[in-house]
Amino acid sequence: MNMQYIEGGICAPKGFQAAGVHCGIRKNKTKKDLALIVSKVPASAAGVYTQNKVQGAPITVTKANLTAQNGYARAIICNSGNANTCNPNGIEIAQKTCALVGETLSLPAESVLVASTGVIGMELSLEPFQTGIPAVVNALSDSGSEDAAHAIMTTDTVKKETAVSFVLDGKTCHIGAIAKGSGMIHPNMATLLCFITTDVAIGPALLQQALKEAVDESLNQVSIDGDTSTNDMALVMANGMAENKEITEAGSAYSQFVQALTAVCVELAKKIAADGEGATKLLCCKVSGAPDVKTARVVAKSVISSSLFKAAMFGADANWGRILCAMGYADAEYDISKTSVALRSPAGRIEVCENAAALPFSEEKAALVLAEKEIHIEINLHQGAASASAWGCDLTYDYVKINGDYRS
Amino acid sequence: MNMQYIEGGICAPKGFQAAGVHCGIRKNKTKKDLALIVSKVPASAAGVYTQNKVQGAPITVTKANLTAQNGYARAIICNSGNANTCNPNGIEIAQKTCALVGETLSLPAESVLVASTGVIGMELSLEPFQTGIPAVVNALSDSGSEDAAHAIMTTDTVKKETAVSFVLDGKTCHIGAIAKGSGMIHPNMATLLCFITTDVAIGPALLQQALKEAVDESLNQVSIDGDTSTNDMALVMANGMAENKEITEAGSAYSQFVQALTAVCVELAKKIAADGEGATKLLCCKVSGAPDVKTARVVAKSVISSSLFKAAMFGADANWGRILCAMGYADAEYDISKTSVALRSPAGRIEVCENAAALPFSEEKAALVLAEKEIHIEINLHQGAASASAWGCDLTYDYVKINGDYRS
Repeated sequence: MNMQYIEGGICAPKGFQAAGVHCGIRKNKTKKDLALIVSKVPASAAGVYTQNKVQGAPITVTKANLTAQNGYARAIICNSGNANTCNPNGIEIAQKTCALVGETLSLPAESVLVASTGVIGMELSLEPFQTGIPAVVNALSDSGSEDAAHAIMTTDTVKKETAVSFVLDGKTCHIGAIAKGSGMIHPNMATLLCFITTDVAIGPALLQQALKEAVDESLNQVSIDGDTSTNDMALVMANGMAENKEITEAGSAYSQFVQALTAVCVELAKKIAADGEGATKLLCCKVSGAPDVKTARVVAKSVISSSLFKAAMFGADANWGRILCAMGYADAEYDISKTSVALRSPAGRIEVCENAAALPFSEEKAALVLAEKEIHIEINLHQGAASASAWGCDLTYDYVKINGDYRS
Repeated sequence: MNMQYIEGGICAPKGFQAAGVHCGIRKNKTKKDLALIVSKVPASAAGVYTQNKVQGAPITVTKANLTAQNGYARAIICNSGNANTCNPNGIEIAQKTCALVGETLSLPAESVLVASTGVIGMELSLEPFQTGIPAVVNALSDSGSEDAAHAIMTTDTVKKETAVSFVLDGKTCHIGAIAKGSGMIHPNMATLLCFITTDVAIGPALLQQALKEAVDESLNQVSIDGDTSTNDMALVMANGMAENKEITEAGSAYSQFVQALTAVCVELAKKIAADGEGATKLLCCKVSGAPDVKTARVVAKSVISSSLFKAAMFGADANWGRILCAMGYADAEYDISKTSVALRSPAGRIEVCENAAALPFSEEKAALVLAEKEIHIEINLHQGAASASAWGCDLTYDYVKINGDYRS
């Protein structure tokens, strides 16, 4: 597929505007804390949510609104600084937030989706929204993606934004996305939020399927610290303004769309992992030669989730025994005895293990390979043709510092 | 039950001798690296082992020997400094180690159980055993428990040893145990080893059942870093020299024995958690009001395994949202909405959450409570009568330091 990475983030697709402002939920006035994304026309919408039993009030309200509007939406509103989770009046606050956006834009409240990220169990007042929502609506623009990306950041050190263009039956289509992940100024959890816009024409049901396929291969393969947030959410809005023939079945156009959507999500997954709390290195683990994709995914994710392996990567220690150990406790059925492992970075590649046993290698070369900022762990199970990747980061002093600090 | 904690460790039960020496597997000559435990008469024996797909060669050989001797054994030999795992000739080395012990003590090789802990994938030579085994046999004594406890230590900062006495049908019985856990000088994993001796008369099958019951409630509820080692092993030998009426069924005597065995294992579980790599605090999480024990166990273990919660405890931050979050992603079915949470230490007790929502509390008092070395997390699910505990430690800079360092 012919696909290009382009500028513009969530405003790259036709008919989307965005903005980010400071509304007062966070004390630091230089930090934006309210983001808004609006489609000029009703958009098919879909979402995937945290599997945690504790679910933030915004998740409940977003699901209900999507259902009420039969899978269509016009806007996404998101605050940082407060997760609006474990609050007795959380649902009411989230509903009123949607209502305020709806009033200001002359839209039904139910056409607005809502997300929050921040401290759990801290009361959230409607007040900052009352002044903030008119302000963020006023700030809406075709170049507002960057401000929105900043407004959803917490302990993130860089904004996460990407966009692609590609052609479907002669029409240029776009997908844009912003995301946040990896912790909070008032640290509570590595909440992952991802908002995707596209001008592709596709109905809500197929959009939901496409989102799940893309997220399973990308955002769900990221781990910073093994803690599944109460507020994780990925939302997509597709407004059809690219004027491609509407995708109505899982054929060639659908496949191309999923491929582009997956590329966008993988790009964000890598950005999130690289900016994990305290991280100094991006870890990319690719498992190939697997009997099926599920096995490859589970094994890859187990490796990049291992605290011991993550600490070894921080120390640039080619301690491949920890890779085998993490593979061994992954919840998957396969024969581990044929495993080969190599470590690769811009500084070179070293094979460290074959048939699950040691290969001789130069510790000097290994230290050079592992001194780089992006480390690839290449695992071959030698028992099939399936493969999958997972992304993580090293475990550092700063992770402990960020999360050990007082909330205030 | 009338039970006393006593001195003597694994030599407290009648008919057991132990020793620990330096045999040369580790370079540091002041560090013992070979432990031996011997029963004067054949003992019922039982073991529980890691669930990791990668299993150290000693685990394979120990299982085979126990089977070959119909569940009886005479000795346990254990080295530190090398895990004898992912070595092409590992099985042969483990078998020859048992054979050497057997020859020296005039016992069948199959009556010797073997364990190893250390770096994975590093060649292990028979040479240190050839001189070390005669030396450790020569050192066997009735007061050798402490030396044996030292010889199995890796990055442990304190030895783990305990013993109890109790009365079964008029006979004084004993259980003693040593354990190691929480990492390695050449860090590879937090291997957990536990060797238990008792003079109680009980057959191999019931002993196996008793061991599983005790370990499920204790050692299996410990987590330092979520990494399941390739070499975890708990072994028990019961030689019957207390002359109680042999326990042949799951009646009152069996229950008392399990109770004592569990107490010993809980004691070691707490010692292991408190000495977790880099730990400054012991975390004890008790979940009560659960619909069943399994749910209570899974929830308690999820809380003490959360990196975010562990980091918060290091920072003395009463960030209870992380407790709810970890409860929410635990693999158990229950209603989280009734949850109450309190934090307790010698400095006091604070209730932080009721009906899964915030309670007002004094941050000053919370800081005092959490400044202590042993923190109790009291969770009540308010939906049943079952309870369980789990033990862990805080996540600190030193954990990263210990595991990020080079292997050499």
